[in-house]
Amino acid sequence: MPAHARAVPADRIHRLLNHGPTVLVGAHHGGQTNAMAAAWACALDFTPPKLTVVLDKATCTRALIEAEGGQGRFTVALPCVAQAALVTALGTTSAVEVPDKMERLQSEAGLRWQSVPGHAGLPLIEGCVAWLVCRVLPQPALQQAHDLFLAEVEQAWADERVFHGGRWHFETADPALRTLHHVAGGHYYAIGEPVVSPDRGTRA
Amino acid sequence: MPAHARAVPADRIHRLLNHGPTVLVGAHHGGQTNAMAAAWACALDFTPPKLTVVLDKATCTRALIEAEGGQGRFTVALPCVAQAALVTALGTTSAVEVPDKMERLQSEAGLRWQSVPGHAGLPLIEGCVAWLVCRVLPQPALQQAHDLFLAEVEQAWADERVFHGGRWHFETADPALRTLHHVAGGHYYAIGEPVVSPDRGTRA
Repeated sequence: MPAHARAVPADRIHRLLNHGPTVLVGAHHGGQTNAMAAAWACALDFTPPKLTVVLDKATCTRALIEAEGGQGRFTVALPCVAQAALVTALGTTSAVEVPDKMERLQSEAGLRWQSVPGHAGLPLIEGCVAWLVCRVLPQPALQQAHDLFLAEVEQAWADERVFHGGRWHFETADPALRTLHHVAGGHYYAIGEPVVSPDRGTRA
Repeated sequence: MPAHARAVPADRIHRLLNHGPTVLVGAHHGGQTNAMAAAWACALDFTPPKLTVVLDKATCTRALIEAEGGQGRFTVALPCVAQAALVTALGTTSAVEVPDKMERLQSEAGLRWQSVPGHAGLPLIEGCVAWLVCRVLPQPALQQAHDLFLAEVEQAWADERVFHGGRWHFETADPALRTLHHVAGGHYYAIGEPVVSPDRGTRA
């Protein structure tokens, strides 16, 4: 596993995504590994944890996920401020046009990854602050019409320096470990300062 | 319209949501207006702009949207730091249990709203930094199984002090106007500082 990764309990996994970070989506099929940036990922359920992610038909990452079959696995990682250039590179270099994208970004942008334990080639990108292993919940009509994928999260880990006690603690860690939130082009905002309001205890 | 609201061109509406803010969802049916907080909203498409939002079956807001029929309209507003206590109040007070929720939060939490032009009762909550008028794209199976709603955005406005030239500019405005990003309970992060990386021009 990447350095500092600690398992996140299933009932806390949705909290990794509550604050709306930009993510990296990774996939593997037939000896090929790829990864791309995605701003449109969102929590969908608590337990079992689920998420949605929009994957354009033009992406190699989507093709790899679909080649794995209806319930293919993929990874979602949360990159941090220190990785902004890598995120833009992963989001703007297409493996459809640049077949050696991953190798090229190893040398040009410092890309490093490990395999998910038990799933050789499925990438956990080093330097991120959280990693989720997802399995597609097949919705062929949605995938075709809206590029929208639903998935169940099977396992997750987060960097213990910024996520502990079941929640994020960016304010007490290195600012370079804050999550990225996409604006447009190569522009992001880092997540900012805590805002606390009284919790009235029930739900709407 | 609320103060400082300026129309956002259709092809820039997705940028209102790219950075993953917590939202307020508003609805109206049969003389009743309601609003709730939702952390799980996400952009879905560019033009026409679309979004997804998770609406629990226990919420009055969802019941009002569904009562409008398969293609009911609802609003999505982006609250800011100045409104954190209001967001928590809207997210933890249920109109199912407190039928006069909206009136009560007018007096207790400073809630104010105007109607969408041409749609009396459909709320645009004052003090937010963006407002979207959405129409449900009916997906009965998804709505039932996953509480997931797809919608097309018909119109949007943003506060010109923080969104202009087709993108956010939080860094040059009052910090109280920054969007909120949910952590857990009544805890949020404000969106933070800009991070810029070279844009390599193509898409993955």
